[in-house]
Amino acid sequence: MPMGETVYLNGAFTPRKEALISPLDRGFLFSHAAYEVTAIYGGKLIDFDGHLSRLGNTLEAISIPNPHDPAGWTDIHTQLISRNQLSEGLIYLEVSAGTYDSRDFAGPEIFTPTIFLFADHRPLINDVAEHGIKAIFLNDIRWRRRDIKTTQLLSQALAYRSAREAGAKTAFMVEDGYVTEAASANTWIVTEDDRIITRNLSSDILPGITRGHVIARLRERGLPVEERPFTPDDAYAAKEIFTTSAGAMIAPVIQLEDRPVGDGKPGPVTRQVQRLYYEAIGADVATAAPWALA
Amino acid sequence: MPMGETVYLNGAFTPRKEALISPLDRGFLFSHAAYEVTAIYGGKLIDFDGHLSRLGNTLEAISIPNPHDPAGWTDIHTQLISRNQLSEGLIYLEVSAGTYDSRDFAGPEIFTPTIFLFADHRPLINDVAEHGIKAIFLNDIRWRRRDIKTTQLLSQALAYRSAREAGAKTAFMVEDGYVTEAASANTWIVTEDDRIITRNLSSDILPGITRGHVIARLRERGLPVEERPFTPDDAYAAKEIFTTSAGAMIAPVIQLEDRPVGDGKPGPVTRQVQRLYYEAIGADVATAAPWALA
Repeated sequence: MPMGETVYLNGAFTPRKEALISPLDRGFLFSHAAYEVTAIYGGKLIDFDGHLSRLGNTLEAISIPNPHDPAGWTDIHTQLISRNQLSEGLIYLEVSAGTYDSRDFAGPEIFTPTIFLFADHRPLINDVAEHGIKAIFLNDIRWRRRDIKTTQLLSQALAYRSAREAGAKTAFMVEDGYVTEAASANTWIVTEDDRIITRNLSSDILPGITRGHVIARLRERGLPVEERPFTPDDAYAAKEIFTTSAGAMIAPVIQLEDRPVGDGKPGPVTRQVQRLYYEAIGADVATAAPWALA
Repeated sequence: MPMGETVYLNGAFTPRKEALISPLDRGFLFSHAAYEVTAIYGGKLIDFDGHLSRLGNTLEAISIPNPHDPAGWTDIHTQLISRNQLSEGLIYLEVSAGTYDSRDFAGPEIFTPTIFLFADHRPLINDVAEHGIKAIFLNDIRWRRRDIKTTQLLSQALAYRSAREAGAKTAFMVEDGYVTEAASANTWIVTEDDRIITRNLSSDILPGITRGHVIARLRERGLPVEERPFTPDDAYAAKEIFTTSAGAMIAPVIQLEDRPVGDGKPGPVTRQVQRLYYEAIGADVATAAPWALA
């Protein structure tokens, strides 16, 4: 998954190795920064309005002025796609509260942000989507504002390391007896009686853009989604489990801890959700994901 | 409070303006970094063993190899003091998990850290110590591992901004009905019947180095400290309140929200704690803090 050679930093497109910031940046000192990750498929931005809207919410919540309007953000993203010849992958965007000649928690009244974006070439309709992944359970130890997308991601980094040590690809976070979300994705289960469940929005989870898109597509098809909390036992009893995120789109979960999910293979609801989403982003499913047609 | 002109970055002493890191550093992307702030008084490192010990604990908890032994850390700090002619102030130290050509939550098995230190000239026995500060109450929304000192400090940055908007200098964080700690300091109260109380150690609070030092000094004098949680109402009823931290040492709290603490002036127990601590760090109290002798 090679990163693009051209990145964007504070107004300039520059070679990745030449992009440098001060370690006095508030992103480095205080994790005072918002971020977004947008999927690119067929060279096009996917669900971009949703990402820009959430970025605006995050920036407002952490007192950073939004440095660009939607047209400005679109232009930077479009140029990054073009300059890196990015057909399929991700664009990462981070806006920190900027660099100052002091380490002061409160900082100035008005921040002058640091803006950093890079492109990442990677298949999004990929092996994970075809074959599925294993997940473990971990306690959710994050802060209480998971509804905004900030770089306070240390617990998530450690969760992925724990998952890897357990031979898994992600972790389902559990708090007060309920699953909140996966380490960097929303979680979904399909019950024995074919109900599709994903956790309701609140400050306990991130309002996933892919999550919202999938709910809309399923509702269009007359397939209601129940938005409510579910327990680890509900997950163990589920026929199917999948996660949604911009980076992995729809990822089947075929094993939870040491137990197979259903028959241990991606199930028909998961395949339907994948088809609906892949079609929506303009993929030729028969070519790009023939396994999703089965 | 001018920052020193010479900083330390990854093995080199360099002008502050020339110290640069990649925005792909895991400190900037994931807040995957430990930090410490050590007080310097009379050109000497204060409570340094405690800071190094806690740094080791934090690094171990977040899977970053400790890049230096105590002698190595002491040498870097001593050189920073000397190169910046730092007599009174702070040295800030940050160790992040390093920079890689990918944004991968789990990262490599073994990290190659980024190491950054700078010196900050500022009076530590200062106006705040003499006259005291106002504090407000805020909900504690931090993650659950407050016992390690990481750069996941966004909620603290926002807390200081809220305090400033309320005309206060800090915030007392409240969770489940009890005060955890202040925005970047441990909190202490003196009750009507002269008991000295500070919250017990757990993953709910940072094990403050100054806190530990003060407890030891008070115990030497036969003044026991009760380590247990206290409520906002306990604080409102207290005769005296103060905070302890490396950066502000012992700071009297003379107002909580809109209510004066005691008679609205730093009280005798607070003054005694200040005297004990200032003497311990080698200050001439009669000259540096005559108000603490009253």
